[in-house]
Amino acid sequence: MAEAAQTLDGWYCLHDFRSIDWTSWKTLSSDERQAAIHEFLGLVEKWNKTQSESQGSHALYTIVGQKADFMMMILRPTMEELNEIENEFNKTKLAEYTIPTYSYVSVVELSNYVAGESKEDPYQNPYVRGRLYPILPKNKYVCFYPMDKRREGNDNWYMLSMEERKELMRSHGMIGRQYAGIVKQIITGSVGFDDYEWGVTLFSDDVLQFKKLVYEMRFDEVSARYGEFGAFFVGNILTEEKVPQFLHIN
Amino acid sequence: MAEAAQTLDGWYCLHDFRSIDWTSWKTLSSDERQAAIHEFLGLVEKWNKTQSESQGSHALYTIVGQKADFMMMILRPTMEELNEIENEFNKTKLAEYTIPTYSYVSVVELSNYVAGESKEDPYQNPYVRGRLYPILPKNKYVCFYPMDKRREGNDNWYMLSMEERKELMRSHGMIGRQYAGIVKQIITGSVGFDDYEWGVTLFSDDVLQFKKLVYEMRFDEVSARYGEFGAFFVGNILTEEKVPQFLHIN
Amino acid sequence: MAEAAQTLDGWYCLHDFRSIDWTSWKTLSSDERQAAIHEFLGLVEKWNKTQSESQGSHALYTIVGQKADFMMMILRPTMEELNEIENEFNKTKLAEYTIPTYSYVSVVELSNYVAGESKEDPYQNPYVRGRLYPILPKNKYVCFYPMDKRREGNDNWYMLSMEERKELMRSHGMIGRQYAGIVKQIITGSVGFDDYEWGVTLFSDDVLQFKKLVYEMRFDEVSARYGEFGAFFVGNILTEEKVPQFLHIN
Amino acid sequence: MAEAAQTLDGWYCLHDFRSIDWTSWKTLSSDERQAAIHEFLGLVEKWNKTQSESQGSHALYTIVGQKADFMMMILRPTMEELNEIENEFNKTKLAEYTIPTYSYVSVVELSNYVAGESKEDPYQNPYVRGRLYPILPKNKYVCFYPMDKRREGNDNWYMLSMEERKELMRSHGMIGRQYAGIVKQIITGSVGFDDYEWGVTLFSDDVLQFKKLVYEMRFDEVSARYGEFGAFFVGNILTEEKVPQFLHIN
Amino acid sequence: MAEAAQTLDGWYCLHDFRSIDWTSWKTLSSDERQAAIHEFLGLVEKWNKTQSESQGSHALYTIVGQKADFMMMILRPTMEELNEIENEFNKTKLAEYTIPTYSYVSVVELSNYVAGESKEDPYQNPYVRGRLYPILPKNKYVCFYPMDKRREGNDNWYMLSMEERKELMRSHGMIGRQYAGIVKQIITGSVGFDDYEWGVTLFSDDVLQFKKLVYEMRFDEVSARYGEFGAFFVGNILTEEKVPQFLHIN
Repeated sequence: MAEAAQTLDGWYCLHDFRSIDWTSWKTLSSDERQAAIHEFLGLVEKWNKTQSESQGSHALYTIVGQKADFMMMILRPTMEELNEIENEFNKTKLAEYTIPTYSYVSVVELSNYVAGESKEDPYQNPYVRGRLYPILPKNKYVCFYPMDKRREGNDNWYMLSMEERKELMRSHGMIGRQYAGIVKQIITGSVGFDDYEWGVTLFSDDVLQFKKLVYEMRFDEVSARYGEFGAFFVGNILTEEKVPQFLHIN
Repeated sequence: MAEAAQTLDGWYCLHDFRSIDWTSWKTLSSDERQAAIHEFLGLVEKWNKTQSESQGSHALYTIVGQKADFMMMILRPTMEELNEIENEFNKTKLAEYTIPTYSYVSVVELSNYVAGESKEDPYQNPYVRGRLYPILPKNKYVCFYPMDKRREGNDNWYMLSMEERKELMRSHGMIGRQYAGIVKQIITGSVGFDDYEWGVTLFSDDVLQFKKLVYEMRFDEVSARYGEFGAFFVGNILTEEKVPQFLHIN
Repeated sequence: MAEAAQTLDGWYCLHDFRSIDWTSWKTLSSDERQAAIHEFLGLVEKWNKTQSESQGSHALYTIVGQKADFMMMILRPTMEELNEIENEFNKTKLAEYTIPTYSYVSVVELSNYVAGESKEDPYQNPYVRGRLYPILPKNKYVCFYPMDKRREGNDNWYMLSMEERKELMRSHGMIGRQYAGIVKQIITGSVGFDDYEWGVTLFSDDVLQFKKLVYEMRFDEVSARYGEFGAFFVGNILTEEKVPQFLHIN
Repeated sequence: MAEAAQTLDGWYCLHDFRSIDWTSWKTLSSDERQAAIHEFLGLVEKWNKTQSESQGSHALYTIVGQKADFMMMILRPTMEELNEIENEFNKTKLAEYTIPTYSYVSVVELSNYVAGESKEDPYQNPYVRGRLYPILPKNKYVCFYPMDKRREGNDNWYMLSMEERKELMRSHGMIGRQYAGIVKQIITGSVGFDDYEWGVTLFSDDVLQFKKLVYEMRFDEVSARYGEFGAFFVGNILTEEKVPQFLHIN
Repeated sequence: MAEAAQTLDGWYCLHDFRSIDWTSWKTLSSDERQAAIHEFLGLVEKWNKTQSESQGSHALYTIVGQKADFMMMILRPTMEELNEIENEFNKTKLAEYTIPTYSYVSVVELSNYVAGESKEDPYQNPYVRGRLYPILPKNKYVCFYPMDKRREGNDNWYMLSMEERKELMRSHGMIGRQYAGIVKQIITGSVGFDDYEWGVTLFSDDVLQFKKLVYEMRFDEVSARYGEFGAFFVGNILTEEKVPQFLHIN
């Protein structure tokens, strides 16, 4: 058996993608729609408070194309809180006019390929803590996709030695580092939680950099031979100020 | 032909995942909702009685993400009882407000890789009986996934000799044993009953241990070369006390 | 080109799986439900008459889990009769409260791997006729699954010589023979009729024997290297006497 | 690069599969249903006229099993006409009571594996024209399936030389020729038009011959190593005379 | 790691496929339908204006078969504009009568396999600009499909050297060049934006040329060994003049 990778794990994470049932939404009166928007913004206000207390974080993005109309990404210290937030949203008026289209359950993760080893407790290291319990950035664009490491014939990641995997991940990480300051990447682990092994969430103010980064990585052996990718979602930030316009009906 | 594994088989098992149609549920009056909840809890009460008489067991968990809102896991001595419980639930008021999203039919199983051989009738062995007819634990978290052993090119589990499989399963089992007392695992066999060959249900008070266990196992040859995994579901315990709040509408 | 297997073909077969829309079904008055049940049992009565005249056969089973609530398996001498029965059922009141979930179109088949060769016309042989035009048994349990023979890289059934296939099928058949009297198996061929190459329908009074049989066979090279399996359905017999109770609403 | 096969191409083809929403259909009054049937038969009458003028052809079949209730197969000289027919049908009353379940867009095709080469313009050859612009037969049964030639590891059709492909297709064609007069086969090409590379439509007065033909071919290397098959549909002819009975509600 | 391909990237692109809910559409009065058509054509008028100002481009095609009734292909300088157009359409009256069936998010792309290298800034080159910011042609037919380069065993595009890929792409491009003036091809890159790596949109006045081009390319190693194709859509141009007739109900 190959030596298993060790992980550091932070906040639990729910990506919740929804489409809007515009036809039904339009049947509401303008006042009813205002009330529904108001209630939803109240929920976001609560999330903002949690975030300001460093007890979690969240992000709202509209999604381009038919896969969803918007995404809520929620980070919390416990799985129970994710479940509560999901249920609380499901009970809102707005939720009656949304259709669930995809979700992903995971936990913010750092692997020891990257983290290296040390004598100290990494959970006390401020840099590590900043990555495990991140306040999500307010970049203009988001990209999300789930992925697996391949286990197929001669391309079986999990049969490689720790040394081989470390070496491969090192060169893979070097590509990522070229995008430092341009693309922010949050890796969440989902083994045992959802259908793929990881979720990758990218943030940037230049949407083209998502394509450049993912494409460049695809020529690297880690992706080329060992990457299996699920659906890709791309979107634009949905600030609270833009919510009423996004949901506005003439 | 490779020697087939022998199994010991206990209670039949139904995993029944449901989403709630919140929009319709909200159209009920508060009294109607109370009546529906009351009726459902009456059903659970019957299941509790069966469990207290050691004639079966059950577990209720809410599920995180859009795959389902809750799961009922039911163990019974016969396939007929599973079918009856399913139909009885389907005829309740609450069921009208649920949407079936996934189910799994299987039977609690011990394999002779693990069980070893003995002169005695294992079905009379109290330890074995405790594993074949388990009272499901009340842990805070559940994880469920179905799986197959791979039959693909050079990675064909069913073409290995009994000796090879035993050796592989032994080292695989050793990983599991490290989680003894932390993660409780119930294996149910579903060959001939459902689309995968096994269902794996894990219980723990620390949800992160699901990820650690499944990830560590993935580096073991049994999973790395021979494991094929279906969807993963993760959830929080839904005690009877929490049912009204879970279904409460303001 | 490898020598093609020859088949003997009997009655055409439709497996028709349905879920019940319990929510709508409950909106009917008790009298309306009685009328719908009565009409359905009248249809079954007609099928019974056909069966008593050896012009076909049928079986009704409830299905465990969410894949379906019940299955009708219909055997008839012609494809037209299957189509008529299907349309006749679709026009009943009960059908308005069912949701089609899966179906399978095939024809009862014996292959010359099994049948051997002979100078006589096999279609005149009473034993062969009994297998090609079977009256379906009334066992307590049913199991259905479709399957293919694999054509993949080095595991390509259709590139094997007739001799190799015969030898493999002989040892495969020997497993089946151990279950004689315990599990009754009806093989239906569906090449050109439906998405898999065969349907397998198993009947038994001991549901566990389905699992034991299919699992034991999986270690045999025919399944291990060459079997590709579709969805598995398992169910309990639905006698006409039990229909009213099955559909009863308090 | 391997030499590409050349094709001769005839009429464009739409296979349009529909299920009937019997529950809604029954809510119509008998007069309304008569009017809808009448309107649909008027459409068929137009198609008959086109066919009698050799400007296209069509076929109607009911489909066995839940994949569809009936299929319209339409041949026309242009893609625009297919689109118009589809839209015209969609605007009928009957269409309101149908549910689209599958469709296939292609063009009648002869390949030079079969056609051989000649100095003459094949489009002027009456035999070739009869195959490119066929009047569809009125056989009792139809079988439709889409297919690809495999491109996988060592089984890559498109990497074979023209010589190899020609030789393989020759022996493959010889199987087909044994069914001359029993099964009529129309090959339609769909590269660039739909998800598979070809559609195969078979017509016969003996439905069992579909199974015999397709099964025998599967042992031939062209299918065994290089065939990838989509869904299979089988059905009974729906003459205009039978339309009212097919749609009749008591 | 293989040297990554460099790309030039132009306008962002949304392919939006819709089916029409004809049954509901017919429930509108003729005046209501006129108003909905008028509103939609107003939207198209806005797009025309944008196009005349070289700030984007768009195309409307009806789609043959059940995959969709029509497609809107939209090019814009930013991802935000695509999202706004999509939302604006979703809020129209017509959208209430459409069902989203497929969409694709990408960006117009030129690769350095094709573009060659030069000292100048290619974004200032008028020829390059014409390809990155294209005004979509008004050809009679469209063909769209998404695709990947394969990463499987020995057929792994991303493990080839830049030299090998360049050589393969050169011969591949030569096929395309034979269709110059007959088929116009727009490649859009979707790595990081949607589920496949590229979208291919073809335009022609001869629909058969789509089939000839794609089929001929399939014998080329780039497609034969390295191409993975998604769904194919084919359609006829929907000019603004034809919109009322397309949506007309008698």
